[in-house]
Amino acid sequence: MSKRVVVALGGNAILQRGQRGTAAEQMENVRMTAEQVVRMIDAGYEVILTHGNGPQVGTILIQNELGARQVPAMPMDVCGAESQGFIGYLFCQALANCFLSRGVLKSSPVCVVTQVEVDAEDPAFLNPTKPVGPFFTEDEARRRMGERNETWIEDAGRGWRRVVPSPDPKQIVEKEAVTALVEKGYVVIASGGGGIPVVKGKDGGLSGIEAVIDKDLAAERLAHDVNADILLILTDVPNVLINYRQSSEKALGQVKSGDLEKFREEGHFRAGSMGPKVEATLRFVKNGGSRAVIARLDEALEALEGTRGTQVVR
Amino acid sequence: MSKRVVVALGGNAILQRGQRGTAAEQMENVRMTAEQVVRMIDAGYEVILTHGNGPQVGTILIQNELGARQVPAMPMDVCGAESQGFIGYLFCQALANCFLSRGVLKSSPVCVVTQVEVDAEDPAFLNPTKPVGPFFTEDEARRRMGERNETWIEDAGRGWRRVVPSPDPKQIVEKEAVTALVEKGYVVIASGGGGIPVVKGKDGGLSGIEAVIDKDLAAERLAHDVNADILLILTDVPNVLINYRQSSEKALGQVKSGDLEKFREEGHFRAGSMGPKVEATLRFVKNGGSRAVIARLDEALEALEGTRGTQVVR
Repeated sequence: MSKRVVVALGGNAILQRGQRGTAAEQMENVRMTAEQVVRMIDAGYEVILTHGNGPQVGTILIQNELGARQVPAMPMDVCGAESQGFIGYLFCQALANCFLSRGVLKSSPVCVVTQVEVDAEDPAFLNPTKPVGPFFTEDEARRRMGERNETWIEDAGRGWRRVVPSPDPKQIVEKEAVTALVEKGYVVIASGGGGIPVVKGKDGGLSGIEAVIDKDLAAERLAHDVNADILLILTDVPNVLINYRQSSEKALGQVKSGDLEKFREEGHFRAGSMGPKVEATLRFVKNGGSRAVIARLDEALEALEGTRGTQVVR
Repeated sequence: MSKRVVVALGGNAILQRGQRGTAAEQMENVRMTAEQVVRMIDAGYEVILTHGNGPQVGTILIQNELGARQVPAMPMDVCGAESQGFIGYLFCQALANCFLSRGVLKSSPVCVVTQVEVDAEDPAFLNPTKPVGPFFTEDEARRRMGERNETWIEDAGRGWRRVVPSPDPKQIVEKEAVTALVEKGYVVIASGGGGIPVVKGKDGGLSGIEAVIDKDLAAERLAHDVNADILLILTDVPNVLINYRQSSEKALGQVKSGDLEKFREEGHFRAGSMGPKVEATLRFVKNGGSRAVIARLDEALEALEGTRGTQVVR
């Protein structure tokens, strides 16, 4: 039986450092990423794709801000949904074109617009930490804090920027439909940008909320909810490192989750970069997943085969 | 066996005349529309939803234009994909909440990002007619025509506006996945805004194109491709009228497609409004559909039951 894999793509899979972010640049990056994804599919893996949306939703937030003198700006849940349509479309098209050119017999991939439930009582809501959208002057930021219920902070001398909460993902709202499609053999793109954050009201109804969910932690939920065998987190480095930039620096190959947890407690992984990826792998293995891998995008298939990347096992 | 229906929602299902277009307004309209949709589901119909995106993609185009001094503007295919994410998200959430409050046992609805194939040789590409995006002065419009390969026209004294081609939809690219979901019992939202227009290259690969597909004609393709029994086009009037605003004005109840075709040839239906809806019903019935209906949003269920709206039969 073929192994089911949730593949979480990093920002470099869509936009590379130094690029302006034109549609042509992003389509070309996505096309190259699709080649890597199709290598996995061709080797017999059942792939569910998820991806970040930082630069894309950042662009949409800037457009909403600058467009606000003519048309109402949309809240973050809607902007996130827009970014899922945007990126999902690029991947559907690029993957289908890649199937065709490589002679892979597969139906058109499917992007499912995905909500991810978070807990309205998540402590993250008391402490917004995730910077989003455009930079402003202190005056503009203070005006916004007065007018809207928003938190703005001074960001390392680059200006003021809004920060939003980053709550823990609980479950993929559309998990049943995604699973149904995967079981029918479709390549599914889901939970883009960590998913559209929603909370459950007292009546059980869902509503959007101003927040950003970490895409690797959401990928772990997706992998759990679709009963994946492997969670593969792709990024721009080949391995997880300990003792980073010290003479004792070491790349982790296969590592037991207990050992990785110890490294994490010793402070080897930074909150903004490797931290959430390591956390996602630990959660996946703890919640019953057989293997979680962190690897470089262009070594994706080799990482699945176990010969590259950091392999986290129980 | 339950009847399968493609429901095409008009602009008033999401945004009403005179509204500014805030997220709260649109969510409330979508919530009310969802009540109508759930009435049909509750009565046993298998519903696939599609919708227009005029005001929403218009807003996104304005935001792209005004944001262009900071971030690259996206082409129309990407903007259309964004509007599908936006509107699809609102419907998924509103429908699920409505299922819950009415005790309808259904999984979360699913929005599938949808490409629609058009013919690169479609004559519409020689004659762009569909106005999109913001108004500009003549100077700005002429500069854009010089810089980009775009057509701009003077629009009824309101300023200059870009026009894009409106080619005929050929097929829904994601039709197999949509059908698979429908057959599993999911309410699917697909082909929003007429779908993301794509053309097939010589190698068979797809690419996006600057165009807008009529959402009712795309709804006909969707209905055909998912093997629907009924195409239901919802709008803000209760019936198709002939001899419009004359003393002999008459609302059409049940009408044979041959008769409706004759009325169309006599010029009873305007190109920008009822024309494409009538054309969509004629095509659906001609292509083997058993019944196509044009009706008012709040009479949707009655229209399916045959007691309201204009019922087009062979």
